[in-house]
Amino acid sequence: MCGIVGYIGKRDAQSILVEGLKKLEYRGYDSAGIAMYTEAGLQVKKAKGRLAVLESHLDGAPLVGTVGIGHTRWATHGKPSDENSHPHTDMTMKFSVVHNGIIENYTDLKEELIASGVTFVSETDTEVISHLVAREYDGDIVRAVQKAITHLRGAYALGVLTEFEPDRLVAVRNASPLIIGIGEGEHFIGSDIPAILEHTRNVFILNDGEMAVLTKDTVELMTIEGNFISREMIHVDWDAVTAEKAGFDHFMLKEIYEQPKAYRDTMRGRVDSDLTVSLPELKLSPAELANIRKVHIVACGTAYHAGLVGKTVIETSARIPVEVEVASEYRYRCPLITPETLVIVVSQSGETADTLAALREAKANGAHVLAITNVVGSSVAREADSVMLTMAGPEIAVASTKAYSSQLIAFFLLGMYLAQTLSTQETAWVRGIVAAMLALPEQVEQILDNTDALREYAESIAVHEHLFFIGRGVDYAVAQEGSLKLKEISYIHSEAYAAGELKHGTLALIEDGIPVIALATQNALLEKTVSNIKEVKARGGVIFGISDVNEATALGKAVDEVYAIPATHPLLTPALSVVPLQMISYYASLARGNDVDKPRNLAKSVTVE
Amino acid sequence: MCGIVGYIGKRDAQSILVEGLKKLEYRGYDSAGIAMYTEAGLQVKKAKGRLAVLESHLDGAPLVGTVGIGHTRWATHGKPSDENSHPHTDMTMKFSVVHNGIIENYTDLKEELIASGVTFVSETDTEVISHLVAREYDGDIVRAVQKAITHLRGAYALGVLTEFEPDRLVAVRNASPLIIGIGEGEHFIGSDIPAILEHTRNVFILNDGEMAVLTKDTVELMTIEGNFISREMIHVDWDAVTAEKAGFDHFMLKEIYEQPKAYRDTMRGRVDSDLTVSLPELKLSPAELANIRKVHIVACGTAYHAGLVGKTVIETSARIPVEVEVASEYRYRCPLITPETLVIVVSQSGETADTLAALREAKANGAHVLAITNVVGSSVAREADSVMLTMAGPEIAVASTKAYSSQLIAFFLLGMYLAQTLSTQETAWVRGIVAAMLALPEQVEQILDNTDALREYAESIAVHEHLFFIGRGVDYAVAQEGSLKLKEISYIHSEAYAAGELKHGTLALIEDGIPVIALATQNALLEKTVSNIKEVKARGGVIFGISDVNEATALGKAVDEVYAIPATHPLLTPALSVVPLQMISYYASLARGNDVDKPRNLAKSVTVE
Repeated sequence: MCGIVGYIGKRDAQSILVEGLKKLEYRGYDSAGIAMYTEAGLQVKKAKGRLAVLESHLDGAPLVGTVGIGHTRWATHGKPSDENSHPHTDMTMKFSVVHNGIIENYTDLKEELIASGVTFVSETDTEVISHLVAREYDGDIVRAVQKAITHLRGAYALGVLTEFEPDRLVAVRNASPLIIGIGEGEHFIGSDIPAILEHTRNVFILNDGEMAVLTKDTVELMTIEGNFISREMIHVDWDAVTAEKAGFDHFMLKEIYEQPKAYRDTMRGRVDSDLTVSLPELKLSPAELANIRKVHIVACGTAYHAGLVGKTVIETSARIPVEVEVASEYRYRCPLITPETLVIVVSQSGETADTLAALREAKANGAHVLAITNVVGSSVAREADSVMLTMAGPEIAVASTKAYSSQLIAFFLLGMYLAQTLSTQETAWVRGIVAAMLALPEQVEQILDNTDALREYAESIAVHEHLFFIGRGVDYAVAQEGSLKLKEISYIHSEAYAAGELKHGTLALIEDGIPVIALATQNALLEKTVSNIKEVKARGGVIFGISDVNEATALGKAVDEVYAIPATHPLLTPALSVVPLQMISYYASLARGNDVDKPRNLAKSVTVE
Repeated sequence: MCGIVGYIGKRDAQSILVEGLKKLEYRGYDSAGIAMYTEAGLQVKKAKGRLAVLESHLDGAPLVGTVGIGHTRWATHGKPSDENSHPHTDMTMKFSVVHNGIIENYTDLKEELIASGVTFVSETDTEVISHLVAREYDGDIVRAVQKAITHLRGAYALGVLTEFEPDRLVAVRNASPLIIGIGEGEHFIGSDIPAILEHTRNVFILNDGEMAVLTKDTVELMTIEGNFISREMIHVDWDAVTAEKAGFDHFMLKEIYEQPKAYRDTMRGRVDSDLTVSLPELKLSPAELANIRKVHIVACGTAYHAGLVGKTVIETSARIPVEVEVASEYRYRCPLITPETLVIVVSQSGETADTLAALREAKANGAHVLAITNVVGSSVAREADSVMLTMAGPEIAVASTKAYSSQLIAFFLLGMYLAQTLSTQETAWVRGIVAAMLALPEQVEQILDNTDALREYAESIAVHEHLFFIGRGVDYAVAQEGSLKLKEISYIHSEAYAAGELKHGTLALIEDGIPVIALATQNALLEKTVSNIKEVKARGGVIFGISDVNEATALGKAVDEVYAIPATHPLLTPALSVVPLQMISYYASLARGNDVDKPRNLAKSVTVE
């Protein structure tokens, strides 16, 4: 959340900054702005709203120069407004700062600065940094930044430009991601790689507590205390074109349809011809695995929901108890971690701040940390002991689809690998499931060929403000993901319940006509779930049921409409049942006229706590 | 849910049945009905709606007789309607049945009966039972019932009366509670004790798979296979008067104000003068306790929320990992239970069907089961290995208040007992917390003396349809309970989030004016929570904060309004912070003109799955 870009070189900085911000807009779109050094000195242009608003301002009065910084905002402190937009400046307008993160002690700093005569123009935490840098400046912007940040507590990635030294750009990273791009006679700052991929594939990745000083010809890396460091350059071989819409109306729709490929790519090289699973990336020997007494799965949002499925998969296949917890809670409750604990962190971007903090907490307590992430070289991938990459490819839509479902595939692979290595299940059982996994991509294609009923249903619920999902077991886990997806992009207030739990209170909200989506893919639990469906119907709920083809007739008798997914092993149904829920969310969002790919208030990779 | 009453004797059966149903109405109030043997043979009167509707029907045309059965319904199969009301009869109107529970295979049975020529008049599962009893009848109602129930799968408590044998009443229990009351020349059936307490204090409690045959002079107890059994009679020493409103407008309000007493009563005899805790009811020796490797807390609804606090308390005090799960999920996912697992089940009534099933699953797997319940002699209390009684007294309002908060006290006592027995914390730490516990009743009284701001706030949110609660750690646990309470009685769609998790999706629902209640009683987490509050405020959320007096000023700067609770130990804050949330729910329900004590769709003790 919040995207930072910076440029210093010989070319037109404005167009490079704006193009970079376009690639970063998924990180926030409450406002955007740039600061550049021009003939008239330091100039700032910024505007509330999407990047397009800033662009229209710049069209009328472009900034001309070859050095600058830019920012796209996801609001934390202060509402989206022109004043709260970045870059922020000091009172003399000589120093400009862009910031991603949260300064936790900004209230104290602000009071202190006000007492010393500073006037603030915004409600942001960031503005204190520009005033601090200005106060500390004595002719060397690097030293001024170093001194200023000694006062800060919290998370920050910074880009700093001063009118007094237009040949230098300063970048700082502390608990918010930042990378440096290396060109020829030009250098770049970016919150992530896509922001600069059009210009260079060579990058340095900054670690926490490090900073970089850029000129057009040189990059110096140092700790924030000023000790020089050397760092291996990384060459990125992503294809910038992969991140285009390829004919789909929205990135989300494209990504939903890429799921069969994502499943195949995530399984490729990990499933052998004899239906055994290889996971060389898991850096634990069979003997070490046999010592694991418990597993903690830690993640946020959608990745947390993948972890809920992972719990069932691992407990069933490996008979090891699993706890799943949201990362922001996990790290603050002194979790009981021992060296016999395997901690699995799940993050699409690998930059989720809460998840990263939990990873560090777990490592500090001696646990082996396995990361499931989609981004090679991300903070989570670099700091974990073992890394299982999901091969979903770049995910651009804010609402995650293929990254989530590829995380499910990763958990299936891990579960089967554990069962096979620990001999906790029969070989035939493992092979049966692996064979069923190989059929999943084609089964998803079958669902994607059969979406008319989903579209119609989505259009029918678009007029509602409340909706409930129910299910038992892994159906409940998928129900939670379906509910979140619908919330994120349709803004319908939906909520998922364990089917048996609704009657313990929330049933009070069911009244005539309230739509309820019931997942009932677990044949062994069908009768119990049908009993709960009847309780809802008796209060006027209108029910859309999802089951596999074998149970669709039985479920159809109890619900108003039923959608059948292909039959698979009961453990694997989430990888199929989530697809109709994604499509319902997509169409409901469309029907309500929302911006599917950029839902209000949200950002793609959540790099603040 | 669903209440059953039955009478056979010499007095006017109608008034006894109706008075009994009044006491049972908390179990369901979708419809009510009675069947009696009169001069005109078997007669049935029933009506949709509250019991008062039935009463007005009976006023015009009373039934006269000395034997009958009655029922108050919480709808599971089929909407509330006259036809779906109990008692149900066969086609000849000679057999009548009242039923609490769910017949899971009723669809198959119904199809089979229809194929054999039976006509159904209701949508209920129960009606199949009356037709089955009629089909099996060959002159002996006991044998007919025994044969009929061999076809049933599911949960049921039954009362059966036939015109052919008006001197006998048959009662059956399988997984739904039923008791038999013993009078002089008269006998009673009841779903629970209060239904008959006015007439007798001597009861037999039926176990699963047992039945009773009542005449006015005799009670025969037998298994459903027909083997006679003997049972110890229980003498109940409850005071029927305790269950009156005592001048309060609603039972809920009375029960909120009874919390200081409930806390004192639950601590009485368990806290010694040297601030150590005694728990003789815990039937595990210190050596056995030291072998406990993990704890599972299993419960439903409000009791589940008490378990969430219990997790933090036990993990902090005893350093034993705790998993908390809703009972309907727990029993179906093959939980990994070993003899080193302590399973704690929590249920106010001790009759919650899902919780009882989970208890049995845990015992079958060799775990020691500790029950925390409010009702002595309840199914859960009878079947658990150890029982900690909460001393909240009878709770009548459907929305639980004093039972929940007394469960918190039980967890505090248990946590301190474990810390002291296992030496996992310093003695001074334990004594400090126990001393703070003793101050809680008076601190609750302080809150109850200061409710004007809560009433005003509740009235301001009553116009809203959406509301969110946020908090971290135990504040998040209490937030979930506060949210459920508000849903149950105000019907506002509220939802609780871990404060750090909102930004991972649900933040999309925050728009201008949406009310958010933020709990921030954990001083160590205050800055982090304030950061999340700022994220919400930046999107237009209007925030009501709750913190302790020491942090109220700091929190007040970030929120629109702040309510301060007295300061206590951070682990104990839930026992205080829940009180303002209860009051907000109560006043919001009042402001919306709802029936506070009997919210729509709900029932007090959930005895179906």
